[in-house]
Amino acid sequence: MCRWAAYLGEPVFLEDIVTAPCHSLIEQSHHALEAKTPTNGDGFGVAWYGDRPEPGLYRDILPAWSDPNLKSLCRQIRSGLFLAHVRASTGGATSRANCHPFILGPWAFMHNGQIGGFEKIRRPLEASLTDDLYERLEGGTDSELFFLLLFAEGLEQDPQGAMERATRRVIAAQRGAGIEPSFKLTAALANGETLHAVRYTTHATAPTLYASAFGEGRCIMSEPLDRDGCDWQAVPPGSFVTLSRQGMTVRPFEPASEDLALAG
Amino acid sequence: MCRWAAYLGEPVFLEDIVTAPCHSLIEQSHHALEAKTPTNGDGFGVAWYGDRPEPGLYRDILPAWSDPNLKSLCRQIRSGLFLAHVRASTGGATSRANCHPFILGPWAFMHNGQIGGFEKIRRPLEASLTDDLYERLEGGTDSELFFLLLFAEGLEQDPQGAMERATRRVIAAQRGAGIEPSFKLTAALANGETLHAVRYTTHATAPTLYASAFGEGRCIMSEPLDRDGCDWQAVPPGSFVTLSRQGMTVRPFEPASEDLALAG
Amino acid sequence: MCRWAAYLGEPVFLEDIVTAPCHSLIEQSHHALEAKTPTNGDGFGVAWYGDRPEPGLYRDILPAWSDPNLKSLCRQIRSGLFLAHVRASTGGATSRANCHPFILGPWAFMHNGQIGGFEKIRRPLEASLTDDLYERLEGGTDSELFFLLLFAEGLEQDPQGAMERATRRVIAAQRGAGIEPSFKLTAALANGETLHAVRYTTHATAPTLYASAFGEGRCIMSEPLDRDGCDWQAVPPGSFVTLSRQGMTVRPFEPASEDLALAG
Amino acid sequence: MCRWAAYLGEPVFLEDIVTAPCHSLIEQSHHALEAKTPTNGDGFGVAWYGDRPEPGLYRDILPAWSDPNLKSLCRQIRSGLFLAHVRASTGGATSRANCHPFILGPWAFMHNGQIGGFEKIRRPLEASLTDDLYERLEGGTDSELFFLLLFAEGLEQDPQGAMERATRRVIAAQRGAGIEPSFKLTAALANGETLHAVRYTTHATAPTLYASAFGEGRCIMSEPLDRDGCDWQAVPPGSFVTLSRQGMTVRPFEPASEDLALAG
Repeated sequence: MCRWAAYLGEPVFLEDIVTAPCHSLIEQSHHALEAKTPTNGDGFGVAWYGDRPEPGLYRDILPAWSDPNLKSLCRQIRSGLFLAHVRASTGGATSRANCHPFILGPWAFMHNGQIGGFEKIRRPLEASLTDDLYERLEGGTDSELFFLLLFAEGLEQDPQGAMERATRRVIAAQRGAGIEPSFKLTAALANGETLHAVRYTTHATAPTLYASAFGEGRCIMSEPLDRDGCDWQAVPPGSFVTLSRQGMTVRPFEPASEDLALAG
Repeated sequence: MCRWAAYLGEPVFLEDIVTAPCHSLIEQSHHALEAKTPTNGDGFGVAWYGDRPEPGLYRDILPAWSDPNLKSLCRQIRSGLFLAHVRASTGGATSRANCHPFILGPWAFMHNGQIGGFEKIRRPLEASLTDDLYERLEGGTDSELFFLLLFAEGLEQDPQGAMERATRRVIAAQRGAGIEPSFKLTAALANGETLHAVRYTTHATAPTLYASAFGEGRCIMSEPLDRDGCDWQAVPPGSFVTLSRQGMTVRPFEPASEDLALAG
Repeated sequence: MCRWAAYLGEPVFLEDIVTAPCHSLIEQSHHALEAKTPTNGDGFGVAWYGDRPEPGLYRDILPAWSDPNLKSLCRQIRSGLFLAHVRASTGGATSRANCHPFILGPWAFMHNGQIGGFEKIRRPLEASLTDDLYERLEGGTDSELFFLLLFAEGLEQDPQGAMERATRRVIAAQRGAGIEPSFKLTAALANGETLHAVRYTTHATAPTLYASAFGEGRCIMSEPLDRDGCDWQAVPPGSFVTLSRQGMTVRPFEPASEDLALAG
Repeated sequence: MCRWAAYLGEPVFLEDIVTAPCHSLIEQSHHALEAKTPTNGDGFGVAWYGDRPEPGLYRDILPAWSDPNLKSLCRQIRSGLFLAHVRASTGGATSRANCHPFILGPWAFMHNGQIGGFEKIRRPLEASLTDDLYERLEGGTDSELFFLLLFAEGLEQDPQGAMERATRRVIAAQRGAGIEPSFKLTAALANGETLHAVRYTTHATAPTLYASAFGEGRCIMSEPLDRDGCDWQAVPPGSFVTLSRQGMTVRPFEPASEDLALAG
């Protein structure tokens, strides 16, 4: 399990969320309070939108807490939309290609959670990708593959629909491999304009997610920051959150409720 | 605070202590039970004696738990005397030069603990080194500097005496800088033949240390391994342990009791 | 293009070949004389056989010339069979998973050369692997995939035959994708007992390869070491070399001469 | 010997100089044309000024050509004043602390060149620093120490004077140690407003330096970029260049001509 944070609003320095507050994301990399494991030391990454259509990306395999480059970048870079992630591996090597966020064109994606039995369904899911998407695979994580499945399911036209269909594709693959459907998906997704977040699980407890106003914008993250003027609200399981310059909406996200009921 | 393990005896694979057991050193890097911080993710190192007078040295800044090289080396390398360390920084950057063990000639040294107020006494202590030793400084830790002070105090002739005198030198420097003496020193030292370990503190609690028979040898480490046939004994504070092919001795180590009493 | 060296014989320190001589492999990583590019700074690796059936493996993404760990390991480790490689990427990121040698079970493999148009045939070649082999893919290089193809073609029973068949499979895939067959293959392969090397190219010039007696063994490498008592012989293109404790044989390796003639 | 580039003017993307042109700094890291060694693979760094008084800093020990983070950062970050450096070590380990630029407060510094006999004069030069400056030493290079000597010599009030006095201090230390004065100094220095560059040597040839208009600003670097609209001029040896928003001045820089004449 990992920790992540995302922001959309008036440009702020990345450090305001990633490195500076008492319970910043970096602090959570060391001492997460609401995670199964308190340590998220298997690499980190930030993707931020600036003057280019595509985001900047900085990822490394050190623990986030010991990287002076990260600290300096977060102090310098100001952005109106960014994603930041600290990783606790549930499988897959500690390599840059396995660090979140993943990016493709203008899109960036990061994930806290896990696809159950991934090693048994990885190959058929990869085989279902078009050549163009297959070529973009760089690492071996369930999260990166899920990101590419979003494109295969029409991400650019319909983010929520793509995420629901991709989730069903994962569950179908688990069924096909004789595995009990199991997918924890607390994730964020952005394209330079809009920030989506999802909190979902096939069963049991979805990894936590909180949202709050944050200055002239909004922040959504695994655990609340301790900062004055915030009003952290837990995002309920089965939610798809959309933040834009116009505000925040929360819609139900239950892509597979019937499937799972039938399966039960 | 860090975790470490050392072994002397018939050659065993490093993995028998470092990576394989349930509560191996690697496991302790992730989930230390008796440390102030459960995570020791700021680099690691192993020094082992083989066919050369000087030890081999492998150090890196990744967390030990995510380095496949370390796993492979520990599986291949067999040694009758080795030191292994996982670091939780108390100051100083995460760099290879700040990872333990430190080596010089046939000697290897590693340390769990801390010199209080080090930033205030570092310069006079460095200035007290001969040119030859000063040139050997590679990083910025209190531990590496203490290792060089041991040479300045006659390590090669009298290891325990050198460690006592170097400890007094540290305490004198703290006094000279108007700092309350504060030194936690749970450390190991080897020269290819003999393995010394010390557990000492100027006050409060010294970091833990345990010793046990281990196959055809002995192991001494921060926390016990869970392995059949071991008889872990806590090394009492104020002890200087010497292991050789002839057996183990434990002597009192109280270099500065008078000084501290006078100071009190 | 890369540089590599392999040794079989009485155990020697790795440094005797990898780091110490004037024109050692490390020196070749900086100043190759017979390569298209003089710099091989995109990572390195060594695989050596010791007391285990499988080899030890140490790989990293630094240039070989600046890694103190490599220097120490090569000075300590003695082996009767080892492979060492410095990489100059022809594609694929600089990551540990893309560094040679690659290992699987008791086998180790390293490669200097390139599969032409690899990005166009990678997917069908990967699809031709069994699930077991597909799961073992860790990186994205042509070399690693070719190594796995060797297993698919019966490496364990017939190394030369497997290499010929895998070479034909690559060429057939190139034809299938409408690409001119193009494969440079100067490679080494070992299983703990025997060391094979091949020098082959579909056309033009195969990367260089030299063999020599070396103390109580034999060394085969991209460029000669300068050391007394060696008798470096160029291995001719189209050769499959086998070294064992019993001696060295060189057989023709022309897996696809008819195919290429037909194609011409 | 290293390669470096610096820019002052209207904000441009770092990639316009560092990564994108045909003979960009990155390309020079691989294939320098006017350097003693064509490869500068021992780490790299960029320091850029943005919205903070102090510069951002990104350094790593990989070769610059293989770091995807560097490429992304240079594509995103726009700055009106920045320094970029690729390192070919003349001594000192490959560590982040030994990579240029070095920063302190609002100042950034990078260097191509070498202090002759540095190992013999390092200690007295370090001893001449105030405690405050001594504490800022992080690595072991001659370049970082020279940067701190600039502060000791009044950098903030008089950059050229400080550089001349620090140069004399180095030469005096060499004399004091019985070494022939030898100092190659092609360096850049910035404080957020102004960019200084120096090309100097005690004897023989100073490392090359070129300046040109570059869009709405000026670029100064080790070797010319190939880009339309530039008018590269070689900076003569013995020059101190100052660039500000008001323009460029070149003054003589001959700090030790009398000393050297006397010595000759």
